Amino acid sequence: MSIKRFLIGQPIETIKEKRERLTKLTGLAIFSSDALSSVAYATEEILLALIIAGSLLLSYTLPVGIAIAVLIIIVATSYYQVIHAYPTGGGAYIVAKENLGINAGLVAGAALLIDYVMTVAVSVTAGIAALTSAFPYLYEHRVLVCIIAIILISIANLRGVREAGVVFSFPTYAFIGSLLLLLSIGFTGYFFEPQPHFVKDIQPSGDFIALFIILRAFSSGCAALTGIEAVANGVQAFKPPEAKNAGVTLIWLAVILATFFAGITFLSHHFAILPREEETVLSQLATVVTGRGVLYYMVQFSTSLILILAANTSFAGFPRLASFIAKDRYMPRQLSNLGDRLVFSNGILILATLSSLLIILFQGKTHALIPLYAVGVFLAFTLSQAGMVKHWIKSKDVGWKKNIIINGVGAVTTCIVVIIIGFTKFYHGAWIVIIAIPGIVYLTKKIHRHYEYAAEQLSLNGTVIEEYKHHSVVVPISGVHKAVLGALKYAKSLSDDVGAVYVCLDPIETEKIREKWGKYGMGVPLIILESPYRSITEPLIDYIEDVKKRYKDGIVTVVLPEFVPSRWWHHLLHNQTALFIKGILLFKKGVFATSVPFHFRK
Amino acid sequence: MSIKRFLIGQPIETIKEKRERLTKLTGLAIFSSDALSSVAYATEEILLALIIAGSLLLSYTLPVGIAIAVLIIIVATSYYQVIHAYPTGGGAYIVAKENLGINAGLVAGAALLIDYVMTVAVSVTAGIAALTSAFPYLYEHRVLVCIIAIILISIANLRGVREAGVVFSFPTYAFIGSLLLLLSIGFTGYFFEPQPHFVKDIQPSGDFIALFIILRAFSSGCAALTGIEAVANGVQAFKPPEAKNAGVTLIWLAVILATFFAGITFLSHHFAILPREEETVLSQLATVVTGRGVLYYMVQFSTSLILILAANTSFAGFPRLASFIAKDRYMPRQLSNLGDRLVFSNGILILATLSSLLIILFQGKTHALIPLYAVGVFLAFTLSQAGMVKHWIKSKDVGWKKNIIINGVGAVTTCIVVIIIGFTKFYHGAWIVIIAIPGIVYLTKKIHRHYEYAAEQLSLNGTVIEEYKHHSVVVPISGVHKAVLGALKYAKSLSDDVGAVYVCLDPIETEKIREKWGKYGMGVPLIILESPYRSITEPLIDYIEDVKKRYKDGIVTVVLPEFVPSRWWHHLLHNQTALFIKGILLFKKGVFATSVPFHFRK
Repeated sequence: MSIKRFLIGQPIETIKEKRERLTKLTGLAIFSSDALSSVAYATEEILLALIIAGSLLLSYTLPVGIAIAVLIIIVATSYYQVIHAYPTGGGAYIVAKENLGINAGLVAGAALLIDYVMTVAVSVTAGIAALTSAFPYLYEHRVLVCIIAIILISIANLRGVREAGVVFSFPTYAFIGSLLLLLSIGFTGYFFEPQPHFVKDIQPSGDFIALFIILRAFSSGCAALTGIEAVANGVQAFKPPEAKNAGVTLIWLAVILATFFAGITFLSHHFAILPREEETVLSQLATVVTGRGVLYYMVQFSTSLILILAANTSFAGFPRLASFIAKDRYMPRQLSNLGDRLVFSNGILILATLSSLLIILFQGKTHALIPLYAVGVFLAFTLSQAGMVKHWIKSKDVGWKKNIIINGVGAVTTCIVVIIIGFTKFYHGAWIVIIAIPGIVYLTKKIHRHYEYAAEQLSLNGTVIEEYKHHSVVVPISGVHKAVLGALKYAKSLSDDVGAVYVCLDPIETEKIREKWGKYGMGVPLIILESPYRSITEPLIDYIEDVKKRYKDGIVTVVLPEFVPSRWWHHLLHNQTALFIKGILLFKKGVFATSVPFHFRK
Repeated sequence: MSIKRFLIGQPIETIKEKRERLTKLTGLAIFSSDALSSVAYATEEILLALIIAGSLLLSYTLPVGIAIAVLIIIVATSYYQVIHAYPTGGGAYIVAKENLGINAGLVAGAALLIDYVMTVAVSVTAGIAALTSAFPYLYEHRVLVCIIAIILISIANLRGVREAGVVFSFPTYAFIGSLLLLLSIGFTGYFFEPQPHFVKDIQPSGDFIALFIILRAFSSGCAALTGIEAVANGVQAFKPPEAKNAGVTLIWLAVILATFFAGITFLSHHFAILPREEETVLSQLATVVTGRGVLYYMVQFSTSLILILAANTSFAGFPRLASFIAKDRYMPRQLSNLGDRLVFSNGILILATLSSLLIILFQGKTHALIPLYAVGVFLAFTLSQAGMVKHWIKSKDVGWKKNIIINGVGAVTTCIVVIIIGFTKFYHGAWIVIIAIPGIVYLTKKIHRHYEYAAEQLSLNGTVIEEYKHHSVVVPISGVHKAVLGALKYAKSLSDDVGAVYVCLDPIETEKIREKWGKYGMGVPLIILESPYRSITEPLIDYIEDVKKRYKDGIVTVVLPEFVPSRWWHHLLHNQTALFIKGILLFKKGVFATSVPFHFRK
């Protein structure tokens, strides 16, 4: 308990909830790190996909990069619409559910939940890759370092929303600053020496394999778009007017993201940088542009920090989305409980666990995780934009025709991207996500069915309450001592029909018990049960069932003396039979178990 | 449950206990495997200790071997006395406790318990070493193979004593047979070609270091004696007349053991066999004597089997000794419970766990475990024999003077051996045991003190039972539904003073509850508690404490509605608040908690 308080701070009162909201600047820091940080690996993934054909297809780096920058603008514009149409937040899940039905909503929700877990895994591993580019000896400990990073982020998030904003503002703005500097210096160099470092681009043949490789490079680069929807999911975390603040933040985010991504891709191509196992593309670019000076280490550190903290987008988004789904009773209701620091603590812990498992499974390698990444995101984009089209058709608000076109373009574009990614990345890992999404949807529907059944069975319509006809009380004893007499006293206060039961394992011992009972038994009859196989519980349970059958509409209360030791390890010195008996009785109708604790003083 | 039955069989009735006893032949199989199997590594350990000085001290192999063979005779004779003086069994613990006091008994008990664990670890690793000598590719999986072997032995022992005797008779007699054959062939060869294979023995200088090395070789070889005491501890497992049968078994055992050990040591020296990392000495000897034919593989397999099954001595001895100590209330009383197959199941499980941990810790290497091994055994020998001397002085039975001399020689000899082992093996690992023994003794005394305190606090002398003055019942509710009404109905059957409590987290929800309560509340007052920090339990516990204070000598029963789902995973879908509240209430005096289960049908 006191460790918990030290790590996550004192509880916060419910009425303080409004005051914990984000400004645009802290909101940009919280919700942008995922999207912005992906520029650290997106260009590299494009190059890795193209290099498979040697230098033949490298000239497509720029067109692919431009296509993705355009995609960023399209998706951001679509989401700007979403924010204003759904100021209460919820993103793809809410939009798809309300317009396309619960199944579409659950598919979008499952896709996004997977995406949040992937974001944490990919961002943290990429962040450590930025570190190991600068300090290669850390490479072999990367899994451990990743796990430690996840634990630190979890603690920061368990502390609560606004403090998280302050913690994460610094690295985000340091990253934005150092990348702006890097790109400025890089482009200044370009204008003074505009010839490309590449030898003359080869014109490749336009056959099917080349097309497949180019499309796969495009799919890889789409990782840059993950995280854009975070703002739309988190509208309610902003200060009022929530929608306006969130919208402005989204525009800032899209502009910065498109600029950085296009800039890095252009300069990498210009300086003829190729992906290498032991050093990231961004690290190479920074070395070429600035040498290994102060700016290089600033870029590496801030990249590493923003990447590790990009995971934070998910730590804000995952628990919030899970709570939305849980409130609709499609996930365990514990996920909708606000913790005592006003955050959804259970969601944070689950996210930390799942992403750590993924990192261990994939041995902390970013490139191995990427193919699992973008399918879910673009599936959610598609459903969300398709939902928006439906929304405008239904609502016919001002400008609905224009809005249909904007969101329609978004829906069609992202749908094409889903198909491209699923097709080109299927064997590299996308199949896992394509299997997992229906799996999660199936599970959520099973959960929902349970809650529905439960509500039905608990419903009070037409309930008639009748009194019990008889109350029998049974006190199982293991000897005659103070704890047993305490239980007996309590039993006699419940009913006049009380019986004590003793299971005989040793006739000599039993005789002693019988004798002592005559003196201390308070007039309660003692029943001795035989147990040929030395089991205590079996004869006892049989006897209790017999007592239950004696009276129709009667109940039985079993009063169990229970030792409460003063030290935890004393528990190991006493039989846990009482606990075992209570566990069995839980499933017998009309039988209730009560412990009468006996507190040892030492 | 059904897995348990499949693995360990149906329960056996208590009255069948006598029929589960051992004959001399099955008794020899059960209790000899530890002692006999140690010849597989004892000679090797002597050679390993001597080889440290090159070939200089190897001529001492024979004298050291003879010293150990003599020691075997002395110790066995001493224990033959013990069996007849203490036919109820218990070995060193009982003998030391009854004659030298409880502290000596606990030291002997701790030493023996450690020794049993070591026996399992050493025997199993040596058994796997015999296998890997014949099949080297198993070497890298040795830890896993060891753990599997321990699990199989545990299951066999959980099935019960007589079946264990049958299971283990075959390998023991196979080992005895194949070693007899091996030694016969070996000695036949010796008589036809009696020149030693060694070049002329060098006469070493008698300096201190040489003496130390020779004594350490002797200490290593003492591993051959472990397990001799097993018969004395297990007298009660024999058919009546128990003492006579056990005594005869012990004599057989000592004769076979001394013969095998002396024979192997002599032939190994004669054939100039030296210890090697990848092959055991016994494997080399078998190869030299018989070539790699059928007999070689017979020796290796039966050695491997008897070694792995030697662990079985401990699986008979450890739980029995633990139950003796537990009956004296120096260990948790669960260890004295006979399981439903008439074996001490808890002791078997603990032994299996501890020895597996040791093997994992020492990476399945026999030689690394040996230094921890013999200290405990000889400490127990010494205390046992010293106790016997005291016994004869007190009892003055027929032949007591002769008996004092026999046990006196045993006590002095084994005491000297303890000092030699502790001194020469201290840095190699004996220190661990020398620290662990007082640690265990301290723990047993703490346990005993707890049981004494407990008995004192439970004692009924002068107890006066008074009726309770008042009975208040509190029903915490989370809503108004059937489970709550079930709890309410039960609560009303306990007392007339019943109150329901609801913790308000959301004013709108609370208003709905209040409304429904008017309709379904059965006239019970509903108390609403505020919770500014969204905790359910804290305001509830505070309220219950307030109710408790209202009446002097009154009690409070808290009736908690509890959901019982029909599938295990449904538990994850409901809050565990009731369980948490019950845990807290367990420590409040005069407050009792009862669950009223609500059984979901689906």
